[in-house]
Amino acid sequence: MVTMEDIAKRLGVTKGTVSKAINGAEDVSEAMRKTILETAVEMGYTKLSRSKEAPKMAILVENMAYSKPEDFGWDFLIGFRKMAEPSGYQVDIIPLDIPTQQALSYDEYMLLNAYKGGLFLGLNFRDPWMTEFQTCRTPTVLYDNVVGGNPCVTHVGVDNNAGMDKAVDYLKSMGHSKIGYLSGELCNYIYRERYEAFFRALRQNGLDSSEELGQACTSREYLPSKLEWLMELGCTAVLCSHDKWAQSVLLYCQEKKISVPERLSVVGFDDLPLCQTTTPPLSTIRQNRAELGRSAFYALSSQIDQIPISTLQLHPELIIRQSTGKA
Amino acid sequence: MVTMEDIAKRLGVTKGTVSKAINGAEDVSEAMRKTILETAVEMGYTKLSRSKEAPKMAILVENMAYSKPEDFGWDFLIGFRKMAEPSGYQVDIIPLDIPTQQALSYDEYMLLNAYKGGLFLGLNFRDPWMTEFQTCRTPTVLYDNVVGGNPCVTHVGVDNNAGMDKAVDYLKSMGHSKIGYLSGELCNYIYRERYEAFFRALRQNGLDSSEELGQACTSREYLPSKLEWLMELGCTAVLCSHDKWAQSVLLYCQEKKISVPERLSVVGFDDLPLCQTTTPPLSTIRQNRAELGRSAFYALSSQIDQIPISTLQLHPELIIRQSTGKA
Repeated sequence: MVTMEDIAKRLGVTKGTVSKAINGAEDVSEAMRKTILETAVEMGYTKLSRSKEAPKMAILVENMAYSKPEDFGWDFLIGFRKMAEPSGYQVDIIPLDIPTQQALSYDEYMLLNAYKGGLFLGLNFRDPWMTEFQTCRTPTVLYDNVVGGNPCVTHVGVDNNAGMDKAVDYLKSMGHSKIGYLSGELCNYIYRERYEAFFRALRQNGLDSSEELGQACTSREYLPSKLEWLMELGCTAVLCSHDKWAQSVLLYCQEKKISVPERLSVVGFDDLPLCQTTTPPLSTIRQNRAELGRSAFYALSSQIDQIPISTLQLHPELIIRQSTGKA
Repeated sequence: MVTMEDIAKRLGVTKGTVSKAINGAEDVSEAMRKTILETAVEMGYTKLSRSKEAPKMAILVENMAYSKPEDFGWDFLIGFRKMAEPSGYQVDIIPLDIPTQQALSYDEYMLLNAYKGGLFLGLNFRDPWMTEFQTCRTPTVLYDNVVGGNPCVTHVGVDNNAGMDKAVDYLKSMGHSKIGYLSGELCNYIYRERYEAFFRALRQNGLDSSEELGQACTSREYLPSKLEWLMELGCTAVLCSHDKWAQSVLLYCQEKKISVPERLSVVGFDDLPLCQTTTPPLSTIRQNRAELGRSAFYALSSQIDQIPISTLQLHPELIIRQSTGKA
């Protein structure tokens, strides 16, 4: 167990200086504070909670709504907290922004705030801390982001291969032999994984898997032209990388009087609450967010107990509503 | 909660007959017993433990030694039991054979023996129950076998991609630019996954990844000729799909006076206890078996609690001993 004395000895400063730096006092120079925090991280120091405080975990959220029951993050956070709080953890939910990530390194931030571990939701690859996950020492769980090789980092998500298999299987059983795919930007890790899973499912099912059947676009406004193109190719069904795009497809079909599902079957991914209220209600691949939250807690507490889980994936479920039918 | 009465009503037989069939009494015809068990499984009946009995889990083992501390299965089983028994489960360890699998369907076997769930170690794809895992209803965890799409089945293992990355990274840092691979039969799921992970790691590291660098063979006696071939191609390092083959490579090198690691670096996979006693001691990618056991228990108890985990992978660790050195 590394103590403040050990850090002080290593750096040749007083214990008081170390304590000030670690507790964020004002009267330590910025350079000294940085040196002390870096050394503390490097030596594996962890800040003790004051005896009466519960140990703390942080959920750091960006690009994801979570404040209302219909938001993607709502059930996720509840699932996590329902496991964490009875286990004696205090859970802080922190909206994350770029300036926070620029001000301190990730490990330093977590040490300063006495977090034993962090769960990240909605991060994207441009976030400054993303590169730090390759070498960080703080127990960390990433939802739908993958950073290889660091034993302190776990990836939690659904099994995209299984999800695409289920959807393609089902569409094939409904007589669809040409299925198109509309994806978000392929530089997004999850969209890339789902895109590859889609083609893998086509091949496994012995269906046409020509590359032109998968169309990726960077913005919603390009969806109509890509959709028209897929229909010209003869597609009678379209799978989307996420529900919001499937929703846009449904809106466009309504506008252009393309009847769903008679002319075109449409399938989303995620099962956001919006799927129940689209016209017609959207068939989709469900990620059970409460279960993801529970699994994320398990993964994080395992990391804290030094069981280095690399990946924890859940089985997705195919939810059939009225946006799909016979070819 | 389905009861024996429900099953009796569905089949139009007495509750006594159902009870006899489910409890394995002799005076029920084979055909009737089979019908009753199938119906019980289909209706989701689970056998109640007698009130004083602990609920039971089964670990079914085939093709894997576990009775001595140096056996692969030893730490795995201890890791599992250290989690299961304090949680109130009785754990039965059952050597599995083909006749058992032919006599009863998997679900029927588990129901008859009142197991809430099963962990399988060492199964191969020729086992009769393998195909049943696609549709079984019993909570099931497979170590190093994957059956897609059934929400009742979880796969537990190490992250083979991360393992290969670490080994190739390290060999490259030691100056090796041509690395060969000796694999077991590629119809084995795990050997196939490691083989693909090896080539992925070569490409990621910008190393020569021509197909001839990966040699698979069905039996140990073919290893020498494959190894000679890799050395003719200019390989200064060889990675093996599992430690036993790396051990054979070391023995062959000793016999032929090929100096390890000066002329050839050799890396295994698994970190079996034998790695410490080969000449020279073998560098390898470690699967932490105690952690796999603990994770397998978590996966199985989550399945029983209806959290459908698809995959739980652990980070492997690269263990550097004396069989590897500079190119």
